[in-house]
Amino acid sequence: MIEIKREKKFFALGEMRLENGERLRNARLCYQVVGTPNRARDNLVLIPSYYGGTHWGSLPLLGADGPLAGGDYCVVLTNLFGAGWSTSPSNAAPGQGAADFPRVGLLDNVRAQKALLDRLYGDDWQLALVSGWSMGGMQTLFWAMAYPERMRAILPFCCTARCWPHNRVFLEGVKAALCADAAWLGGRYSVPPERGLRAFGRAYAGWAYSQAFYRHELWREMGFESLEALLDYWEQDHLEQDANDLLCVLHTWQSADPARSFAAGSLAEALGRIRARTILMPGSSDLYFTVEDARHEAALIPGAELRVLESDWGHCAGGPGRSAAAMRQVFAAMAELLGR
Amino acid sequence: MIEIKREKKFFALGEMRLENGERLRNARLCYQVVGTPNRARDNLVLIPSYYGGTHWGSLPLLGADGPLAGGDYCVVLTNLFGAGWSTSPSNAAPGQGAADFPRVGLLDNVRAQKALLDRLYGDDWQLALVSGWSMGGMQTLFWAMAYPERMRAILPFCCTARCWPHNRVFLEGVKAALCADAAWLGGRYSVPPERGLRAFGRAYAGWAYSQAFYRHELWREMGFESLEALLDYWEQDHLEQDANDLLCVLHTWQSADPARSFAAGSLAEALGRIRARTILMPGSSDLYFTVEDARHEAALIPGAELRVLESDWGHCAGGPGRSAAAMRQVFAAMAELLGR
Repeated sequence: MIEIKREKKFFALGEMRLENGERLRNARLCYQVVGTPNRARDNLVLIPSYYGGTHWGSLPLLGADGPLAGGDYCVVLTNLFGAGWSTSPSNAAPGQGAADFPRVGLLDNVRAQKALLDRLYGDDWQLALVSGWSMGGMQTLFWAMAYPERMRAILPFCCTARCWPHNRVFLEGVKAALCADAAWLGGRYSVPPERGLRAFGRAYAGWAYSQAFYRHELWREMGFESLEALLDYWEQDHLEQDANDLLCVLHTWQSADPARSFAAGSLAEALGRIRARTILMPGSSDLYFTVEDARHEAALIPGAELRVLESDWGHCAGGPGRSAAAMRQVFAAMAELLGR
Repeated sequence: MIEIKREKKFFALGEMRLENGERLRNARLCYQVVGTPNRARDNLVLIPSYYGGTHWGSLPLLGADGPLAGGDYCVVLTNLFGAGWSTSPSNAAPGQGAADFPRVGLLDNVRAQKALLDRLYGDDWQLALVSGWSMGGMQTLFWAMAYPERMRAILPFCCTARCWPHNRVFLEGVKAALCADAAWLGGRYSVPPERGLRAFGRAYAGWAYSQAFYRHELWREMGFESLEALLDYWEQDHLEQDANDLLCVLHTWQSADPARSFAAGSLAEALGRIRARTILMPGSSDLYFTVEDARHEAALIPGAELRVLESDWGHCAGGPGRSAAAMRQVFAAMAELLGR
C-alpha cells in the first residue's frame, strides 16, 4: 500500500438533470487529487471508483510499482453517485433520500466528472489516461464514448461497457438476497436490514472470486485462516453499507447500455465513437465480466487490444492492491499506454 | 419426454441409524421401478435423484434415444431423504419435523437404497449401471465407494464426490438468500417464507446455467420469451418447495466428504475403493461442479475416464431431457458402459 494522504473533497454541482429526465438536487461529487497538473494540463489521469468502494480503495493504483508513483501525473479519483460519499440515498436532499433517490446512470456519473475537471482545470485539459476496475472500468468506457477527444488512452479492467445478461442475473440474485429481508421495507427502513445485508455479502462472495481461488485457498493470502472467516468478512463489510446506497449503484450497473445512453443505433455504433488508445483487460477467471463478453466489445472499439489479465482471483484480480501478480499486469499495460 | 407411467412406491425402513449417530424414525424411501429383472438379476440400473427434483424428473434418462429405452434393463429410480417424497422435514415423524429433522448424509441415502434393492431382489443382484445427474451423480459415486462389488459401471455426470470449497460457498449464498427472510424463523415457520423462497430461486438461476447460456439466450429453447420470464419461473418453482426440505438436502450436499463417510485417511483412499468401470462426466460450463474438481477426482478413481460434457447449458447441461445435444453425450457414454 502507498502512503498517500487520504483526502475527501467535494464539488457542488447544484441541480443535475439526469439521463432519465429526473433531477438530482444538491448533487455533489466526492473526489481527491494527487499530484499537480503540468503547464499544458495534459498530464491528467482519471480513476473513477468501483462498486462497494470509495476512491480511497483506488489509491493502490498509484502505488510504488506502478507508473503513476513518480509524481509525473495529476491523478483525479472520483466516487460514484449512490456509493455513500458523492450524493447518495443515504445523504440526499430532503425528498430524494432513501427509496426516493432518482435513478442515476453511468453517463450521469461521467458528466459530473467532466464538470469537475472543467472546474478544476478550465476548458483546456487532456487526460493522459482514464482507468478503473469493474464499475470504474465501465465509467472509463463511458468516458471514452462521451468525450472521445479528451483522452489519449484508456485501460478498463475486469469490466465491460454493457451489463451483459448473465451479469444482470448474478446481480438480480444478490439483490434478491438483500430484499428478502422484510426489514428492508422497500427501502423505507429505519433500522438497517441486517439479515439482508449479511445475505447480500455472503451471496456475493461466491461470485467475487473464482472457483480456483477457493480450490487453492487463496484467501489465505488475504490473511484469513478459514473459509468461514472470509465469508464473515464479506458479511461484516456489507453491514457497514447502506442498503439503499448498495441498490442504487447496483441499478446504475445493471442499466449500463451504451446504445441507449448515446442514442446510438447499436452497441457497435456507440463503442465506435472511441478514439483513445485502448487496452481492454478482462480477468481470465472473472465470473461476471467475462472474457467472452469483453472480446465481443473489444472487436467493436477502433484499434482496441484485448489483453487477458491472467489470474485465479476471479473478478477481484483487478481489485487495487489485492493480488500483486495481477497488479503487475495492470501496471505493465498502464505504463505502455502512458508511453513509459 | 418418454411416456412411462409415473408411479410412487414407498419402502418402509423403520428406524434408521444415521452416519452422524442420530436416528431417523419411520424412514421411508420413495421409488419407482421401470422394467423387469432378468433371471440372473444382473440387469438392474439405479438412478438416484438430484437436488430440487423427484425421481419423475429422471424419467427422461429412460428416453427413446437412450440405451435404457429398449426394456432390457430394470431401472430403479429413488428419491433423496429430505426432498419431499422420501422422509423429509415436511413429512417426518412427530418430533423430527421441520427444524428438528436430523442431518442426513449421502451415505445414509445410499444405504437406504441398498436396503431397498435387497428387499426387492434378495441378496443376489448386480447393478449393470448406477448413474445420475448432480446430487444423483454424488450418490452414484458414494454407491461405488460403499458397495464396490455390486455394480459393473457408473456414469456420474455434472458432479463430484466431495463438495469442493467454491461449491460450498455458492450454496452458502443461496441459503443466505432464503434465510434472510425473517419469516423463515429458523425453520419454525407456520406459513412459508415466500420472500426467501423467491430469493433462493432467483439467486440460484445465476448459477444453474453458464454465462454463455445467458449471452446466447438459450432460455428461448426452453420456451421462455424473456429473461425475466425465466427468473419468474425459478421463483415460482421454489415457492412450491418446502424451505426446510430445501435446506435439509442442501446440507446433505454441502456435507459430502468421502474421507469422513468411509473413515478413510484421505479422499484418495476413499475414491480408491471404486471398482466399477467409471466415466466421470463434468459439464464444460458448469459453474459449481467444475471440470477441474472432477479431473482431480477422476485421477483418484482406478481406471476412471474423465469425459467432458460439452455444452453451454452450465450445470443444467445434465438435467434429464433439457438439452438434446447434451443428452446425446450422456446416452453415448451410457451405451458404452452398458456394452451396447
